[in-house]
Amino acid sequence: MLFSLETLGYVAAFCTTSSFLPQAILTIRTKDTESLSLGMYSLFSFGVALWLAYGIFKKDYALIVGNTVTLILATTILSFKLKDLISHKVRRHRARK
Amino acid sequence: MLFSLETLGYVAAFCTTSSFLPQAILTIRTKDTESLSLGMYSLFSFGVALWLAYGIFKKDYALIVGNTVTLILATTILSFKLKDLISHKVRRHRARK
Repeated sequence: MLFSLETLGYVAAFCTTSSFLPQAILTIRTKDTESLSLGMYSLFSFGVALWLAYGIFKKDYALIVGNTVTLILATTILSFKLKDLISHKVRRHRARK
Repeated sequence: MLFSLETLGYVAAFCTTSSFLPQAILTIRTKDTESLSLGMYSLFSFGVALWLAYGIFKKDYALIVGNTVTLILATTILSFKLKDLISHKVRRHRARK
């Protein structure tokens, strides 16, 4: 083979994680999470955490590295979304008083 | 362990693939790809195809099943985006004549 199976895994991890980066950068920069789905990001983050656990149990380093980075990005976006939802609720609660 | 390692992989695959489903359904239904990034979907589809190849070489069925379904969804979205871009170009070309 031209390159090892491990390299293939790392290139795959690089591609799928990189494709997620622009959204993460945009969210961190603008802090705008209005058009992001809470359900979708929760399910996705949970799924990535499970892939990470799967990679750890299987001692598969491409899965571990790829999913660790993706999990950090996904939960960062998720935390911005949750902060936004909480501050919206607090503002609405205060407006009612 | 409460459940097998294989089951963990399948649940992980189910979560990450399902989280991708709403976007695919929305795109197929509305055929609107205006706000989708061609670069992001190309890189993502390529990465998923590599994960699929990685899963095949490793005979890892959770990776194979999860990435096959995700690849079908991602390339479907990508094909809508490409069709949209081509028809835009054709229309602009005709308008110039």
